Amino acid sequence: MTTLDLNSDLGEGFGRWTLGDDDALLEVVTSANVACGFHASDASIMRRVCDAAVPRGVAIGAQVGYNDLAGFGRRFIDVEPQALTDDVVYQVGALDAFARVAGSRVRYVKPHGALYNAIVHHEEQAAAVVEAVVAYDASLPVLGLPGSAWLRLAEEAGLTVVEEAFADRAYTPEGTLVSRRLPGAVLHDADAVARRCVDMATTGRITDVDGGPLAVSPASICVHGDTPGAVDLARRVRGALEEAGVELAPFAADPGGPRT
Amino acid sequence: MTTLDLNSDLGEGFGRWTLGDDDALLEVVTSANVACGFHASDASIMRRVCDAAVPRGVAIGAQVGYNDLAGFGRRFIDVEPQALTDDVVYQVGALDAFARVAGSRVRYVKPHGALYNAIVHHEEQAAAVVEAVVAYDASLPVLGLPGSAWLRLAEEAGLTVVEEAFADRAYTPEGTLVSRRLPGAVLHDADAVARRCVDMATTGRITDVDGGPLAVSPASICVHGDTPGAVDLARRVRGALEEAGVELAPFAADPGGPRT
Amino acid sequence: MTTLDLNSDLGEGFGRWTLGDDDALLEVVTSANVACGFHASDASIMRRVCDAAVPRGVAIGAQVGYNDLAGFGRRFIDVEPQALTDDVVYQVGALDAFARVAGSRVRYVKPHGALYNAIVHHEEQAAAVVEAVVAYDASLPVLGLPGSAWLRLAEEAGLTVVEEAFADRAYTPEGTLVSRRLPGAVLHDADAVARRCVDMATTGRITDVDGGPLAVSPASICVHGDTPGAVDLARRVRGALEEAGVELAPFAADPGGPRT
Amino acid sequence: MTTLDLNSDLGEGFGRWTLGDDDALLEVVTSANVACGFHASDASIMRRVCDAAVPRGVAIGAQVGYNDLAGFGRRFIDVEPQALTDDVVYQVGALDAFARVAGSRVRYVKPHGALYNAIVHHEEQAAAVVEAVVAYDASLPVLGLPGSAWLRLAEEAGLTVVEEAFADRAYTPEGTLVSRRLPGAVLHDADAVARRCVDMATTGRITDVDGGPLAVSPASICVHGDTPGAVDLARRVRGALEEAGVELAPFAADPGGPRT
Repeated sequence: MTTLDLNSDLGEGFGRWTLGDDDALLEVVTSANVACGFHASDASIMRRVCDAAVPRGVAIGAQVGYNDLAGFGRRFIDVEPQALTDDVVYQVGALDAFARVAGSRVRYVKPHGALYNAIVHHEEQAAAVVEAVVAYDASLPVLGLPGSAWLRLAEEAGLTVVEEAFADRAYTPEGTLVSRRLPGAVLHDADAVARRCVDMATTGRITDVDGGPLAVSPASICVHGDTPGAVDLARRVRGALEEAGVELAPFAADPGGPRT
Repeated sequence: MTTLDLNSDLGEGFGRWTLGDDDALLEVVTSANVACGFHASDASIMRRVCDAAVPRGVAIGAQVGYNDLAGFGRRFIDVEPQALTDDVVYQVGALDAFARVAGSRVRYVKPHGALYNAIVHHEEQAAAVVEAVVAYDASLPVLGLPGSAWLRLAEEAGLTVVEEAFADRAYTPEGTLVSRRLPGAVLHDADAVARRCVDMATTGRITDVDGGPLAVSPASICVHGDTPGAVDLARRVRGALEEAGVELAPFAADPGGPRT
Repeated sequence: MTTLDLNSDLGEGFGRWTLGDDDALLEVVTSANVACGFHASDASIMRRVCDAAVPRGVAIGAQVGYNDLAGFGRRFIDVEPQALTDDVVYQVGALDAFARVAGSRVRYVKPHGALYNAIVHHEEQAAAVVEAVVAYDASLPVLGLPGSAWLRLAEEAGLTVVEEAFADRAYTPEGTLVSRRLPGAVLHDADAVARRCVDMATTGRITDVDGGPLAVSPASICVHGDTPGAVDLARRVRGALEEAGVELAPFAADPGGPRT
Repeated sequence: MTTLDLNSDLGEGFGRWTLGDDDALLEVVTSANVACGFHASDASIMRRVCDAAVPRGVAIGAQVGYNDLAGFGRRFIDVEPQALTDDVVYQVGALDAFARVAGSRVRYVKPHGALYNAIVHHEEQAAAVVEAVVAYDASLPVLGLPGSAWLRLAEEAGLTVVEEAFADRAYTPEGTLVSRRLPGAVLHDADAVARRCVDMATTGRITDVDGGPLAVSPASICVHGDTPGAVDLARRVRGALEEAGVELAPFAADPGGPRT
């Protein structure tokens, strides 16, 4: 039986402000990328998401990002590698506190926004994030884009590397994402999105933006949740995968046992 | 042989800004109250202090405070107890990450500034900080002012309670601190300060502000380090204690063993 | 013909996060209390609100608050009076920049949240906010709660004082607001709210929480807008006032003329 | 008689943290680039610097930067141009409030740190800062590096452009700064620095890093002040210029007259 993980960004509010429907998403995904307070989230939001995720068996991952609340982590910052390493350790540690209090642990790391995009190519920053994970807990898997410097350097450093695909994004024949600036970059037809996710999980073959066949067989599929429509789409994806006999489960092992 | 702990606030810079001489203090104290990024410090400062403290055998404590960089945590904030609990868990977890990376653990918790003062009397906030420690790791000792709500509630919650005295502050006949607004509140004579610390460690008796005898036998003495003169004074205190045969050691046990 | 002002809080999003429907409210109110970046809002939000307010003839007021984005300005902070004065000057100046760019000026000052509540009684903080307005521009009117230290001290300092009432809050026989912790503190019946606002504007008499008559004749009525229902209620209030022949206009004069 | 301006960065502390000796520098420079709270400074620091600058006849300039306190504005941020424009307007307005309260006005704009460096070449960000100045007050001169996109676009937009040179930096034969990564980039000999400043002011000719002649005749010379040695150097530069008969005066006109 095929197993697949569904991941999504959660805990992205801040203080008085909410974003997305965390409770609805926790019923859909198997892995929650929880923001850690640098580009979104705060201590109370992190606690609530962790407390809700653990009893549902949803794995908690650290959604680490640039120190930029005003920009939601969506602006590249040319931060020194050592400072970036430190900032990532800080974020993972802070989230781990709430995961531990909730009876679990941070189980993986996934960079967010502009940092996610930067470390596809930016070797120094990619290495800096890898270094943070190695230093904090080298048993933590890292989640990211196939072909990225981030996953390559993580693998070289001995980390467990997990590739993700995007449910609603078009792919080029080379297997990279079609730029959001081009038409057709984002798929809006729910049936097509759901079918494509089933294809990824079962045959490992989808259709690229030019209509040709493309091999895509991720361990995790990323779904979005920051609009009501997005939550519905995520539900649809989950339903189609279950119907197709795909088992949905976190890719990251439950640490289990007593807290240490 | 009498054993005593010397604690001081460290890691209180922020970004481009420095404060105090962390390296000098780490040669003097046995416990470092490290700020955690809410009222002072940042990830890189926390890493540097932890990396320097562990090989010296200095215990790392979480100097938790209000979320107020602009005010250095010196302004009372009427934060909701649950939010305060969450903020403290976040801070302890973030610092613990660096302590673990450095090969140790956060070994105690000491509130800072206005929070320290508030929870002498503010029952709800005191209970909120206690709850954070209990939730994060109930084996962590807490450091504070004798007679405070903070220590009373911590003890009732089953935490290990450690009382501190101040090297350079005058005490009332009731054993409370003389208000800084009154003359004579702060002792400036280095010899007198050193002698008084030796008295605390050996006889447990000092002289109060009115000249009467007062029983003060703390497990830890707090020295300051944010001025060059203060570092010299701290060195003087340490020297006098050592000369008097007092063993200086952290009150908090080294967790030892491999990281978990 | 009776003239009345309707004010509401606008520009309360931050970065990626939105709050309330500024565009809808700008069609209803005559005065916009625009947050200034300390407890909510940012530069881009302030520009957008100012750019939209000026062509509609809506007066721009500075919604000043504590320096507390994480708490949305809803937590009392025991800030030093001089620092509070400085923080208020900073906020008014920042908003004034956008008001000037949009072709107008900041036309009044209204404190927000915990600061609003604090300076009902807190003499030092009330005086500090008054001092900020006097220093920045002593011709600016201030908006607030009748009977507050804030309005009393503002008047003593020679500022123009404008009293407001709340459209949907119950009043005690003494003319103070019924605490939100008590039943009946907030009125939810749209017809009743609208009628009460018409009463305030025309007869200056409403019914207090005990059913007795109460004199309330504000120069401005505060309506809320942070929920879809609230915007509808605000529209209803405006409609009822217009139907009753009340002219709706800003209480604060348009500075007019060229920018200086 | 030759006239020259001396500018320096002031007001670069934050909250509890100090940086540089503002009072000493105000006795040396004729123009103070005052940080505005985004990468350094806060409301109380801005007030104190403005209050001290105006009676000394020192012109107040807005030292605008990226929204990055943690990085002191020294990290390039790929912020959207419109957001950058808004952030600059906000900063200038906030500082202008304190300048007005002190009886003057912001008299020029000089970007800081990574923003200063970015807009030497980054056309979109340079244009965004220009747009902010044009929108806020098109009569404000801008200060910057000769040959930068920033000054070119400012001039094209009709702004008054003021070129600066650096007292202690080596220049290439092309008139650009020698990279700090290369040996000899920074001059440390006080006599040489002072003589070079006199040359700039009198003959307009200095020696480049290769020993050849170079035409450099700035309207303003930038001196640093964040170390005790730097203040001494700045004093030395001022003394040498005065001895050489150079009149030191702000390049930016005093707005004079009553506040508006």
